[in-house]
Amino acid sequence: MSGWLFERTLGSAAMAERFGDRALVAAMLSFEAALAQAEADEGVIPAAAAAAIVAACADEPDIDVLVAEARIAGSLAIPLVRHLTRRVAAADEAAAGFVHWGGTSQDVIDTAMVLATRHALELLDADRQRLLAALVRLARRHLDTPMLARTLMQPAQVVSVGLRLVAWIAPLVRAGERLARARTAALQLQFGGAVGTLATLGERGPAVAQRLADRLGLAVAPGAWHTQRDAWVSLACEVAVLCGSLGKVGHDVALLAQAEVGEMAEPAGLGRGGSSAMPNKRNPVAAMTAIAAATRAPHQVAALLASMPQEHERSLGRWQAELAEWPALFLATHGALVALADAAEGLEVDAARMRANIEAQRGAVFAEAAAAVMARSVGKSRAHERVAAWSAEAARSAGADLRALARAAVRDDVTLAAVDAADLDAVFDIDAAARRAGAIARVQLDALHVSSSSSGDLP
Amino acid sequence: MSGWLFERTLGSAAMAERFGDRALVAAMLSFEAALAQAEADEGVIPAAAAAAIVAACADEPDIDVLVAEARIAGSLAIPLVRHLTRRVAAADEAAAGFVHWGGTSQDVIDTAMVLATRHALELLDADRQRLLAALVRLARRHLDTPMLARTLMQPAQVVSVGLRLVAWIAPLVRAGERLARARTAALQLQFGGAVGTLATLGERGPAVAQRLADRLGLAVAPGAWHTQRDAWVSLACEVAVLCGSLGKVGHDVALLAQAEVGEMAEPAGLGRGGSSAMPNKRNPVAAMTAIAAATRAPHQVAALLASMPQEHERSLGRWQAELAEWPALFLATHGALVALADAAEGLEVDAARMRANIEAQRGAVFAEAAAAVMARSVGKSRAHERVAAWSAEAARSAGADLRALARAAVRDDVTLAAVDAADLDAVFDIDAAARRAGAIARVQLDALHVSSSSSGDLP
Amino acid sequence: MSGWLFERTLGSAAMAERFGDRALVAAMLSFEAALAQAEADEGVIPAAAAAAIVAACADEPDIDVLVAEARIAGSLAIPLVRHLTRRVAAADEAAAGFVHWGGTSQDVIDTAMVLATRHALELLDADRQRLLAALVRLARRHLDTPMLARTLMQPAQVVSVGLRLVAWIAPLVRAGERLARARTAALQLQFGGAVGTLATLGERGPAVAQRLADRLGLAVAPGAWHTQRDAWVSLACEVAVLCGSLGKVGHDVALLAQAEVGEMAEPAGLGRGGSSAMPNKRNPVAAMTAIAAATRAPHQVAALLASMPQEHERSLGRWQAELAEWPALFLATHGALVALADAAEGLEVDAARMRANIEAQRGAVFAEAAAAVMARSVGKSRAHERVAAWSAEAARSAGADLRALARAAVRDDVTLAAVDAADLDAVFDIDAAARRAGAIARVQLDALHVSSSSSGDLP
Amino acid sequence: MSGWLFERTLGSAAMAERFGDRALVAAMLSFEAALAQAEADEGVIPAAAAAAIVAACADEPDIDVLVAEARIAGSLAIPLVRHLTRRVAAADEAAAGFVHWGGTSQDVIDTAMVLATRHALELLDADRQRLLAALVRLARRHLDTPMLARTLMQPAQVVSVGLRLVAWIAPLVRAGERLARARTAALQLQFGGAVGTLATLGERGPAVAQRLADRLGLAVAPGAWHTQRDAWVSLACEVAVLCGSLGKVGHDVALLAQAEVGEMAEPAGLGRGGSSAMPNKRNPVAAMTAIAAATRAPHQVAALLASMPQEHERSLGRWQAELAEWPALFLATHGALVALADAAEGLEVDAARMRANIEAQRGAVFAEAAAAVMARSVGKSRAHERVAAWSAEAARSAGADLRALARAAVRDDVTLAAVDAADLDAVFDIDAAARRAGAIARVQLDALHVSSSSSGDLP
Repeated sequence: MSGWLFERTLGSAAMAERFGDRALVAAMLSFEAALAQAEADEGVIPAAAAAAIVAACADEPDIDVLVAEARIAGSLAIPLVRHLTRRVAAADEAAAGFVHWGGTSQDVIDTAMVLATRHALELLDADRQRLLAALVRLARRHLDTPMLARTLMQPAQVVSVGLRLVAWIAPLVRAGERLARARTAALQLQFGGAVGTLATLGERGPAVAQRLADRLGLAVAPGAWHTQRDAWVSLACEVAVLCGSLGKVGHDVALLAQAEVGEMAEPAGLGRGGSSAMPNKRNPVAAMTAIAAATRAPHQVAALLASMPQEHERSLGRWQAELAEWPALFLATHGALVALADAAEGLEVDAARMRANIEAQRGAVFAEAAAAVMARSVGKSRAHERVAAWSAEAARSAGADLRALARAAVRDDVTLAAVDAADLDAVFDIDAAARRAGAIARVQLDALHVSSSSSGDLP
Repeated sequence: MSGWLFERTLGSAAMAERFGDRALVAAMLSFEAALAQAEADEGVIPAAAAAAIVAACADEPDIDVLVAEARIAGSLAIPLVRHLTRRVAAADEAAAGFVHWGGTSQDVIDTAMVLATRHALELLDADRQRLLAALVRLARRHLDTPMLARTLMQPAQVVSVGLRLVAWIAPLVRAGERLARARTAALQLQFGGAVGTLATLGERGPAVAQRLADRLGLAVAPGAWHTQRDAWVSLACEVAVLCGSLGKVGHDVALLAQAEVGEMAEPAGLGRGGSSAMPNKRNPVAAMTAIAAATRAPHQVAALLASMPQEHERSLGRWQAELAEWPALFLATHGALVALADAAEGLEVDAARMRANIEAQRGAVFAEAAAAVMARSVGKSRAHERVAAWSAEAARSAGADLRALARAAVRDDVTLAAVDAADLDAVFDIDAAARRAGAIARVQLDALHVSSSSSGDLP
Repeated sequence: MSGWLFERTLGSAAMAERFGDRALVAAMLSFEAALAQAEADEGVIPAAAAAAIVAACADEPDIDVLVAEARIAGSLAIPLVRHLTRRVAAADEAAAGFVHWGGTSQDVIDTAMVLATRHALELLDADRQRLLAALVRLARRHLDTPMLARTLMQPAQVVSVGLRLVAWIAPLVRAGERLARARTAALQLQFGGAVGTLATLGERGPAVAQRLADRLGLAVAPGAWHTQRDAWVSLACEVAVLCGSLGKVGHDVALLAQAEVGEMAEPAGLGRGGSSAMPNKRNPVAAMTAIAAATRAPHQVAALLASMPQEHERSLGRWQAELAEWPALFLATHGALVALADAAEGLEVDAARMRANIEAQRGAVFAEAAAAVMARSVGKSRAHERVAAWSAEAARSAGADLRALARAAVRDDVTLAAVDAADLDAVFDIDAAARRAGAIARVQLDALHVSSSSSGDLP
Repeated sequence: MSGWLFERTLGSAAMAERFGDRALVAAMLSFEAALAQAEADEGVIPAAAAAAIVAACADEPDIDVLVAEARIAGSLAIPLVRHLTRRVAAADEAAAGFVHWGGTSQDVIDTAMVLATRHALELLDADRQRLLAALVRLARRHLDTPMLARTLMQPAQVVSVGLRLVAWIAPLVRAGERLARARTAALQLQFGGAVGTLATLGERGPAVAQRLADRLGLAVAPGAWHTQRDAWVSLACEVAVLCGSLGKVGHDVALLAQAEVGEMAEPAGLGRGGSSAMPNKRNPVAAMTAIAAATRAPHQVAALLASMPQEHERSLGRWQAELAEWPALFLATHGALVALADAAEGLEVDAARMRANIEAQRGAVFAEAAAAVMARSVGKSRAHERVAAWSAEAARSAGADLRALARAAVRDDVTLAAVDAADLDAVFDIDAAARRAGAIARVQLDALHVSSSSSGDLP
């Protein structure tokens, strides 16, 4: 299992395995095997040699030895090819000369990373859809449930759970669309030989490339992308953007799960979010995982962007930096997706507490609406001024309530005679406010076309 | 002129102006004016009020005063609306109540940023196309000009100028496509009112939004994107990816312009790249500008990604961080584009020096090809071994040359009798190698469909 | 005023001025003036020439013209020196030849940045001390005020306001110590001439350097640090670390100021934290500013770190990137310090609300302590298990309370006969728990030796 | 072996082991063992219980199982303590209750990270000193060897190898000093219990902490630093600054090792820097490793800085992000140090090539000096103008040389009669210029007090 200890506790086992030592070395060997076969198919190397190479690729090398040799050689492909050549030679001396024929270190390594990333994107997509399905179910169930809207961390107005959830859902839907596009552009065979010209293969280069790509199930790139990292890094950017959207969900859950707020709770369960010291704890571990991922992803993608200016035909240092940084972003993002999907499937919404929190504002969250109604008859500045005064009074004295203060003033104050008392009173209707938000949410949900079953639509 | 002093020397005046104080405040005022008109058109506010507001929006406020007040208020929109309200009131007391009706701080500021960014993207696109056109002209002119390919900062094989330039060109073409898509998704009106429900406008909210968007020439978003920053930050990511590709061009130019390499030179000209101390200097300032931008862009976009988890309905701190970071990325990227486009239009390619640098390798850059030819008859490992020995010998002794050593060995060494001497000799043909690279380049260039005139294709 | 519009609203006017165009150009001119004087004092140039140069340095150039020319020349120093030379020549033709004698672009620009940074650090230090003083006063006043400790965003145990504030204070004290050390190492004259040898000055180089440093009040560096950016960037790192600590304060304030928590509030005041739409809002703008700064600082310092590998004798691109990035970090950090210091001086601590929030936990926050007391007689695992059961029960039923449940169980349950009922009951004493925390806080506060007056101790 | 596959090829096995799964879990268990002993020594728990716990800590748990459980629990400490408790219970039921007594998850994990980091810093220091020793030997040997100084990637003037190497050496010496200070501040026991008050231990808390620290060889912190990450992250910043300085060395080596420059070469050796495709390659793999590290470090430290605002008493998400990011920075930096130290011990300096590269400039690199000599008699502007004209002429025509042109002009041009021909001629003396640079280098080297033996001075 690769990745660092505490990094792995925030990730998923499945993703750690995809970018694990064994999976990557296996992918490199599958490139070498497919290359030999493609070349044999094109008559570039003997079929017997290809068979011997394919057979030898089944052997698992000692990865720690490879890593140690790679530190001196400068690339893991060099000791791997050497190892493979020795294995082939042991079985078929002549075939050994055809190992890695026409390829270069970066061809095998980049393609191995593409293969691992293809799997990685499938994992991301499956759990993104699982999370989406759970959130959509929740949003439809609580479309009109009144909820306090908060801006700048302070109570603002009343919305509905449905509308809040749309703000979680819509970015996840768009992330799927952007990732699908970026994936198509990025998942391409890398095959250019030493300097991008496939010089060793002469005129058969393109045909070998096509056969190699077909065997690996990858698209052929217009040319070697050894130093053209734009489509590749753009894909990583989209993963990081997804991670940023997950971070919003994580922060929201953490805030709503605070004891004093108590509007949402991650599902309780065997061992979820306990404490090594405190029996009373139930920590929001999915939110924690998402926050951690969103804290790290910007920097991970920055490292990839910083690796882009790869000089000449193949880079000294920057490509290697990119390789080293690539997996962590996917592990963290998948960890967040899995954790949030698990949590979303059992997320508790406390509608009573939500209403209580709104009511605790004693009408203040309808101040803007009240001012708007009053402005029709007394002008905006006087309306704003009066409402602010009532708000302050409501905040000061324990029993006071903006609605009551407004009612009394409209009844008693002749300067407010023109204000429509019923209209003013209506703005304080919590459920009506939530229904208006719910209606907006419904339109957006419908337009997003997300299913609430997690059957998935992997292309 | 906004932006920091040394930041501006790396940027363009045009872009600094787009995100300058006056442009942004003007964009905020154009939002307020269009909002009033849209609301008047929908009958939400009186036409006379709208006229008074539009008139007052022509007035330029004292921006330093606004900034000072914004530090206390927490948002620039608050003092701006206050200022505007005072101006309107001076002319039409009743109209003052309708200023900023139904909008919130983030609506006006986000939309102003969208408007500025729309201009910014036009600037980026124009100069990206100018750069592309110049590079394509150069690539077509030098399609087959032999050039040393270098990997890991060491001589590798022979390619052509055309193929090297394709590695600069193709990412710029794709950047245009990705930016066009990202722009469409990102350039949307922000209009949700305090918590995304346009509560003040009631049922006329959507109609006002549509009219407002039409007036500003923007698309209507499916809903408020106050905390849904994914499309917006994804756009910035694409700008940073473009910047990474420009960084590759900058690094390549800087390396090729080294005195000891001398293969390319930025155009000389009045004051270009001089030194305050040394009369002999001609510094590659376009490369410098691109390298600086590519050094900074990853971090700028990381800050934007880090700002994404915006909690609840509108964020405390992260949205503000995003606003503060946004313009610098565009300024730096445009600075790099303009500098490189200027340089590319006069870029000097020294074909003779390129050939001399290849010849200075005394055949070593054909070692892989020679080994491949020999491997056909003596096997890969012996071929590799012999060629490595000749390469070492050629490197050791001043007059030696791999081609000559190979010729002599094939002639004299009976164990190499099976090697086809003519085939072996042919691999050392510099022009043939360059032509093969040129052919690859031509196919890619043709497929990219980039014109070498910079007429542009802004959607 | 330099810096971007929305960046400035998060910063301070004083800091924006320190790194503003005029201040930096003035600092560059003060370098040129001091250089001429130092050289005249050493007999390197005629005294009359120095006098003419000093006189011309009083003239303010058109900075936008300089910036435009710098884009072509590659450095702002080149047009500035040219401008200055013209001014000198107008008064004294012969003196013009001695302008910038022996210096290089990087000497004048780096030294100007050092001079601006010296001022910047004074600003940071003054407001850091002002913030510290306010926090220490508050900590001493509320040393033993009970406050809910929260871990992983959930209620944990009881501490005191004093102890929480120590976690804000101690890092700020250490930041002062680290910044003082880093400042001493970083604020050095840059003076090496074109390649660090002061070649033009010959043997008088060191003496001129000493006189120049003396005139500018800077230390002489052991040698030119044109490419040795370690001390300089290490200083920026310390600013970013300070910013991270301010971010903690900001997040804590924002969380404690939530309506549902209500334990702290930023001072209300004329226009502080209002809303353009909602009369009921009182936003924690100081917390906002600190959070924004802490969101941005990591990336700003990453850009500086990424600029460190400056090749050869002076860098192409990376030094320029560093210059462009430097001021924003200081502006953001000072903005956060000023905002937090202002807020801290009027920060409202609601002790009653703090107690109410503890009591709302109905004893659960003493679960660990209760388990510890019980463990003495029944073993840790049974103790933990029983306490967890009571906690769950208390959480389930509205009226229940852990203390009461524990009391009843110890009284009624024979298997708990060995538990000391009084000891168990004592763990639920809120004030006693807070006093223990307060005692810890007092020891730490005393050891930190921070005064609660903000007289300051700038070295 | 932890860490990602391609990350490990850029790191050292020793450092990967320090932060490997087994080392970290062992460190966590050593904390638990020492805690039990410390508490037994203080009479907090029975000695027999401590003995049972210490015995059980020798057992190695299945780490993958722990990681899987940690994903649900939210912290690796929870399953580890559970595992340990079971092991203890199997041997001594009563003792099981005293496992982890008074500690919290973060205490054991932070302290384990401190222990691993202490080892890590020793590794960094040993190889930093080894690198330093090799560089100092080289610098003293080539103190006066002439070398072309290059600014903005273009030839500038003449310095010496010694002076160039001082620019590599001095930052490494200062890094040692800064790291030593930062280490002292950062390597402290973490021990605060659930909320920093060691509530469970009552008055014996401080005594237990002292004994625990003594057993682990760590300093006692003034208080829990659960959310005070300043000293800890400041240490990481210093590692990143060191990495930035190593990046400069790497970039310089890579540039100087280019075939066309050929001034330095990494040592050849068995398998060093070969190519999987090209027999002619000798890639600078140490430079590669350093460049990769310097590309990544800024982002790694940015993630740590972004993790700093840890809310309340212990953070949800940010602390966990910090843990996940911490090791990679150390691995990359140590990889770079080891690679560069290995390379420096065999670094080849080609003095003849250096002189040839200077001579290829045909005097242009003395242009500033020539202008300075001429300026004494004809004024700076005319001097500059004439020298620029000669430089241009020298650049244009193959055989021309600035020295010859200057000589001829002074001899033939009456307007230059006042120029001292001998003085002018003397500025073109390559060795004299190098000796002046060497003298500057000697003074700095002596002042740095670095030994050229790598005996080391670990505190």
